[in-house]
Amino acid sequence: MNKAFLPLFYLIWSDDLLTQKEFETVRDFISKQDWISPDDKKRLLSEVDVSNPPTRELLSNWKTAIHETLKQNPKVTSLYELSTILSGKETAFSEARNSFLQLESELGILGEEVLSGFRSVQDSLTSKYDTAYGFDVSKMTEILDSDEAMIIKRVKEIISRKEFAYETTTDIAKYREKVLQWCKILADENLGNMAFPKEYGGGGNMKEYFSIMETLSFHDLSLVIKFGVQFGLWGMSVYFLGTQKHHEKYLKKIGTLEIPGCFAMTETHHGSNVKGLRTTATYNHSSQTFSIHTPSKNDQKEYIGNAAKHGQMATVFAKLIIDGKDYGVNAFIVPIRNADMTTVDGVTIDDCGHKMGLNGVDNGTIRFDNVTIPKENMLDRFASVNENGAFESPIPSDDRRFFTMLGTLVGGRIGIPRSGLSAMKSGLTIAIRYSDRRRQFGPEGGSEVPILNYRMHQRRLMPYLAKSYALHFALRYLTDRFLKRTENEMQEIEALAAGMKAYTTWTVRDGLQECREAMGGKGYLSENRIDALKNDTEIYTTFEGDNTVLMQLVAKNRLSVFRKEFGKLDVAGMITYVFENAKTAVAEKNPIITRRTDEAHLLDVDFHLQAFQYREKTILASAARRLKKLIDSGMDAYDAFNVTQHQMIDVATAYLERVILEQFQKSIIATEDVACKKRLEQLRNLFALYQIEVHKGWYLEDGYMENAKTKAIRKLVNQLCWDIRIDAVPLVDAFAIPENCLGAEILKG
Amino acid sequence: MNKAFLPLFYLIWSDDLLTQKEFETVRDFISKQDWISPDDKKRLLSEVDVSNPPTRELLSNWKTAIHETLKQNPKVTSLYELSTILSGKETAFSEARNSFLQLESELGILGEEVLSGFRSVQDSLTSKYDTAYGFDVSKMTEILDSDEAMIIKRVKEIISRKEFAYETTTDIAKYREKVLQWCKILADENLGNMAFPKEYGGGGNMKEYFSIMETLSFHDLSLVIKFGVQFGLWGMSVYFLGTQKHHEKYLKKIGTLEIPGCFAMTETHHGSNVKGLRTTATYNHSSQTFSIHTPSKNDQKEYIGNAAKHGQMATVFAKLIIDGKDYGVNAFIVPIRNADMTTVDGVTIDDCGHKMGLNGVDNGTIRFDNVTIPKENMLDRFASVNENGAFESPIPSDDRRFFTMLGTLVGGRIGIPRSGLSAMKSGLTIAIRYSDRRRQFGPEGGSEVPILNYRMHQRRLMPYLAKSYALHFALRYLTDRFLKRTENEMQEIEALAAGMKAYTTWTVRDGLQECREAMGGKGYLSENRIDALKNDTEIYTTFEGDNTVLMQLVAKNRLSVFRKEFGKLDVAGMITYVFENAKTAVAEKNPIITRRTDEAHLLDVDFHLQAFQYREKTILASAARRLKKLIDSGMDAYDAFNVTQHQMIDVATAYLERVILEQFQKSIIATEDVACKKRLEQLRNLFALYQIEVHKGWYLEDGYMENAKTKAIRKLVNQLCWDIRIDAVPLVDAFAIPENCLGAEILKG
Repeated sequence: MNKAFLPLFYLIWSDDLLTQKEFETVRDFISKQDWISPDDKKRLLSEVDVSNPPTRELLSNWKTAIHETLKQNPKVTSLYELSTILSGKETAFSEARNSFLQLESELGILGEEVLSGFRSVQDSLTSKYDTAYGFDVSKMTEILDSDEAMIIKRVKEIISRKEFAYETTTDIAKYREKVLQWCKILADENLGNMAFPKEYGGGGNMKEYFSIMETLSFHDLSLVIKFGVQFGLWGMSVYFLGTQKHHEKYLKKIGTLEIPGCFAMTETHHGSNVKGLRTTATYNHSSQTFSIHTPSKNDQKEYIGNAAKHGQMATVFAKLIIDGKDYGVNAFIVPIRNADMTTVDGVTIDDCGHKMGLNGVDNGTIRFDNVTIPKENMLDRFASVNENGAFESPIPSDDRRFFTMLGTLVGGRIGIPRSGLSAMKSGLTIAIRYSDRRRQFGPEGGSEVPILNYRMHQRRLMPYLAKSYALHFALRYLTDRFLKRTENEMQEIEALAAGMKAYTTWTVRDGLQECREAMGGKGYLSENRIDALKNDTEIYTTFEGDNTVLMQLVAKNRLSVFRKEFGKLDVAGMITYVFENAKTAVAEKNPIITRRTDEAHLLDVDFHLQAFQYREKTILASAARRLKKLIDSGMDAYDAFNVTQHQMIDVATAYLERVILEQFQKSIIATEDVACKKRLEQLRNLFALYQIEVHKGWYLEDGYMENAKTKAIRKLVNQLCWDIRIDAVPLVDAFAIPENCLGAEILKG
Repeated sequence: MNKAFLPLFYLIWSDDLLTQKEFETVRDFISKQDWISPDDKKRLLSEVDVSNPPTRELLSNWKTAIHETLKQNPKVTSLYELSTILSGKETAFSEARNSFLQLESELGILGEEVLSGFRSVQDSLTSKYDTAYGFDVSKMTEILDSDEAMIIKRVKEIISRKEFAYETTTDIAKYREKVLQWCKILADENLGNMAFPKEYGGGGNMKEYFSIMETLSFHDLSLVIKFGVQFGLWGMSVYFLGTQKHHEKYLKKIGTLEIPGCFAMTETHHGSNVKGLRTTATYNHSSQTFSIHTPSKNDQKEYIGNAAKHGQMATVFAKLIIDGKDYGVNAFIVPIRNADMTTVDGVTIDDCGHKMGLNGVDNGTIRFDNVTIPKENMLDRFASVNENGAFESPIPSDDRRFFTMLGTLVGGRIGIPRSGLSAMKSGLTIAIRYSDRRRQFGPEGGSEVPILNYRMHQRRLMPYLAKSYALHFALRYLTDRFLKRTENEMQEIEALAAGMKAYTTWTVRDGLQECREAMGGKGYLSENRIDALKNDTEIYTTFEGDNTVLMQLVAKNRLSVFRKEFGKLDVAGMITYVFENAKTAVAEKNPIITRRTDEAHLLDVDFHLQAFQYREKTILASAARRLKKLIDSGMDAYDAFNVTQHQMIDVATAYLERVILEQFQKSIIATEDVACKKRLEQLRNLFALYQIEVHKGWYLEDGYMENAKTKAIRKLVNQLCWDIRIDAVPLVDAFAIPENCLGAEILKG
């Protein structure tokens, strides 16, 4: 009979969730059992005496006895059943069934769970699961690279050369020189000037320039940013804001890196609000020159890449002053260093010093003390000073002219998210491959399990894998729109670029954070590169426009579009608007459908698209109404926009997510390979449902979904993470990042 | 009459949201107006000809005319009204009212908004708002420091000395030496041995040891971790796992830093699953020694602080083997370096190299090739090998013994979140003070506005300010519970510590991220310290237990408590349980209350506490049910836990948030100063409502709240952020972080 208590006794002495209190519970129980003889009671009680523990051997014998019994009775399903068998099926014990079950309850143990712990489980679902190669990885790579495959391949070949071995020094002076050398190699390969016109030695191919930025971003990100400053910002500002005389004089030398240069827009006190720049360019009639001047310390140019060390010239943005009159911000080419690399008279350059990341880029501050430049140095595509010293421009409004100038430079807001996405792809490749190999924990008695088999681990990484695919296609779409833009589309495309820049770089920030944590200590060692990927891309959320500010811009654009499109509509029209292009959305508000939870429905891309569209339109209309209401109530428009700032982020997010999902779906439709298509569909499903889950508070608040539905979606997201895990390694393999670029020690050998 | 169109014309030429398409709209409109004479039409049309823009002067004249008119007619409230006045109140124009309003609509402009843009607004709500000092900052500091004020003051005095000037080198060798020197100063000040018994030169004061860790964390975090490794991990492991002979031999020398040492638990392949450690300590009967051995490369000790450079000895965790039999993981003191700092024979140490942060700590790997140590080096408080070479222990279960050993070291899970919270306080102080000074954008014609006046900026920082206060009190509570612990409370306290470690360090991660972004480029420069704060604390989410794993432990503990407490209950009892201590919760499910949106109710702490408790209990009961259901359905328990991992995080989070809110409220009740109390209440309200907003999806899904309520809560969160902004600077001032420790360049001068 004694043996019936073995499992309980074993548990109480070994389970670390049971405390001393439970010894009392068991002792009480034994004392109260009438069917146990006084002698047996005494013996039993002595075995649960906290001051007199069994020997380690005895405990071990108990365990062996339990194991043996379970081996001989594989069909046992409850702790009580096990105990009954151990008791030799003693009648008295059998009769004590209820009180025994009650004891189990009071101890807070779940018999079936305990039993499963006693068994050696070699083949649990979790431990059996593993990576499979169910589709052709190279086909998937083809789908991703599409018509950019050739240039991508060429760039990969270059950054895989031994000269591109990573620099690991912490000496930023050395690092900066290395990055400059790399840039020179790329210039020599005619990659830097890819977007410049052919007549100035360039490739005349803007599309390939973006592919280059993206592919370079599998390598060192300081290199990418230095490259972008030189050829994208400095070069393109001369190209887009200047005229033929500037192109002839500078473009070739910029493309060969003979003239390293800067893009000097941001000032210490004016970053996002560039309209408020304070540097001045004062026209001198007599000498036909401009004096470039920094009024005070806070007006110095700051964070300027290429400034601290290598830059010789700069495109400087400054307010043009003629005869004391301010003509708004214009751009000027200003030499900052002489041939011997000393600074030009009147120019003061300081080093921004060590940064969180991108330490291979020499950011600096620049101050001008009435530095004189010739009149022809004004980049005069949009405005000029004529022979009589009078201002001329085809765009009469200073603000509008400046925004038009900025509009020509929107390419940066395409290059940066594409670069950031590459960094996230690198991080995901490292983290997913590592998690597929690294084993820890496992079923009792079984071997350890790849950590990627754990549901939380999947929950951390799979949604970002899905997002990386989603964003890949959306950024290709953005690029395409930009390359084929017409005048009338410019505002939409500028807003889309601003939004995609913000949305992507925030996603990259979060995705790399998950990669870091998912890799534990290994993710903290610089040798595994998550460090650099994270810290280098950290500033992506700030430069080329602070994300929060950009999202406000996107929202303002959406509001403007909304008002223009629906200026004619009344309230009824507004409602129609919300449901336009989402014809079944009205039906969705039908209780039967707001509650629909079957997989066929939840995995239907039309359902996803409708849900995204509905959210986009409802939020937009609601923000417009709120703003109008506040202003109508007498609130200053500036204050009203401030009050609704938070809502504006939602307006922009909902819009961007709809675009991303739409483009993902379009790419899937165009995919022919069946196996690849299936994986892309799964990723799209995860992207869509994960975002709906993120916004479930909104959907429930709105009534578009009921709780049964949001609960079903959560379950399905978990299931999709589990399903995609099997393909996760081939899915990151498809990014086809050169092994030497991944560079993580943990993946070697 | 012409003049009536000035505002529209000005807009169309200057507003960057209006495109070429809108020129057509205006031209169409003009053409269709019968009341305009053909000549006027012609003139008007010529002014909206996209190929023939007005001169800059003309545009400027239009603007002046509009401004003047508005100045003379301050009561004008609509664009139409303005145009009417400009038209000289021409009848024909007046009659065109409807079509003019229609045109406004079609252009997508909101008259009132445009008008507000034309006016120079000097005193908008947003620009007038500013920091106020409405409470006594030093009183608030007293409330925070409480009975630890003396030791906090002493530590602050020490870290403010000139020897503690920050080290800015990127040379990690130099940095490590500097950190060692700092540690020596602290040892000389008797801070390191504060928790050691007085008979070994210590202060016998564990409570003050925690205060020291917390206060040091206002300074360099490498210093804190090095300090923690030496005195907390190495010292405390000898103290808690060893016996008198070890204390006598080592404690004094550890406290003076005469013996720098390591805590060698983690192995390359066993971090979270320490039970699976593979290093062995084999007993040799003849020589009465142990051989410490690393079976393979993946079993080496990794990330060990103090190992790469300075450590002379280590507490090594290894499986004890006697006569080929495994007795589970035990701890041993192993010399790793000789007096001349060469490594001991058989010991191989490698450097972990550069890390994302904490580069002042010399982390390394250690491998043992049958290193012999004398028998007395086994830390034998919980297990020993007797004179006959037999294993002895008062705890028969190997697992339970090991977890008991780990339990003595739980102090690390108190020290780390307190350290992390200090880092977040530093970050918030820097970011909030900066945002209070830094101005950008502003109303048209007005001066620029402190960025902390922007709602999104407040949304980013105020919730973390509230959380830093909430966590401050909760961590004090945790410390107090730990210091006064009884045997029966240990499991609860261990779980609470694990959970608070995870919850706090995740909050710190997110809070510092917001600080970084809120400071834009300034947050990226190392000179402003956000860099170091972020990267140093990044690993806090991993070490002392991976957060995700810890949250699972917390959930398991909660499930066990739940089962024990409610083993006796049936379904009805379960429901009662959910509502226990939340008596009005049943009433809450009453539609009138689920919809209640008045401020009095929403700001009522009882409502907050009930909502938190309700969530905690509902989630816990639901997870328990789900787990049981899965196991009952035949799923292996190990798989079932995997399937519910995601839910377990919620179980733990809901529990922790309830504890945090409860402790915040208790501290408020104990606060006497009226002005401080009022601020603490506001912070508590923000903490509570912000978390409810974060979880609104859950509350709506559950039906505990209806949409009117969650919407009202969002509005109130915005309002609280706005209200608290006025006190934000004094609220971070109250953290009383020494200026030299803040060390951010941006705050100087």
